[in-house]
Amino acid sequence: MQTDTKTVQTEKYSVPFIERTGMRPVEKRSGYIHMLMPLAGNENHVGVMYMGAFTVLAEAVAATPAIDFLDKQRFFPIIKDLFVDFRKPAGSDVTAEYSLGEEDIATLQADLERKGSAGYLAEIPIKDSDGVTVAEAKVTVKLLSHGFKK
Amino acid sequence: MQTDTKTVQTEKYSVPFIERTGMRPVEKRSGYIHMLMPLAGNENHVGVMYMGAFTVLAEAVAATPAIDFLDKQRFFPIIKDLFVDFRKPAGSDVTAEYSLGEEDIATLQADLERKGSAGYLAEIPIKDSDGVTVAEAKVTVKLLSHGFKK
Repeated sequence: MQTDTKTVQTEKYSVPFIERTGMRPVEKRSGYIHMLMPLAGNENHVGVMYMGAFTVLAEAVAATPAIDFLDKQRFFPIIKDLFVDFRKPAGSDVTAEYSLGEEDIATLQADLERKGSAGYLAEIPIKDSDGVTVAEAKVTVKLLSHGFKK
Repeated sequence: MQTDTKTVQTEKYSVPFIERTGMRPVEKRSGYIHMLMPLAGNENHVGVMYMGAFTVLAEAVAATPAIDFLDKQRFFPIIKDLFVDFRKPAGSDVTAEYSLGEEDIATLQADLERKGSAGYLAEIPIKDSDGVTVAEAKVTVKLLSHGFKK
């Protein structure tokens, strides 16, 4: 089972590119993440959320529930591909959430033990501060054992 | 026709998110852009290029040839959607290029005059410093007249 200590460790993944955005968790518990991307500092040339900020948010929200349960001594996550459909301009902070249920996690763990790889497609609506969906992301997350060869 | 002055102006689009990456043009001429994303400052937690840097590069390379010829008094570009397939980790700077030919531009201009909107799908290989394709991006760029309603 995941421990609080492990959860805290995953937040220490140091990626300056991400830190520069000011993205932060709103809520985080086992298998679940709710993350916020602030508008301030991430505006485009017309003052709404820049495209790149959506991709950072989508990737983090998609991968975090897996990072939580993975035994990092044996396995690591990668993003295989990422799609974002931009629906409306976002003139506020934006948020997104994603969860892996206990059954999802059990299936992923079993795949990892059996073949050294596992994966899932995370479909993630991204919402503005009024709860309006401003973008829809689809992120394919792969989990691999260290030394895994495609 | 596009002028050098216009080209210089497009580089002044101020987006702090982009500026923080250190991305810069390698070569730029009418309808053509070749852009470089430096690894330094854009590494992920294992020292290779962070996913988000690919999306910023892809978007800029896809949109720049259109930004060049657009009459910004009447029209503006938006990214409708973006897909990036990550093929290999990139342990170096990465580059990408894209061009719109004279015929492409004439077609886009005609669409803009006739219906107030136009668009294209930019398929963009992203390469490391050895010329190996490390990611493939597909970016749908829409060009709209100010006041255009979907």
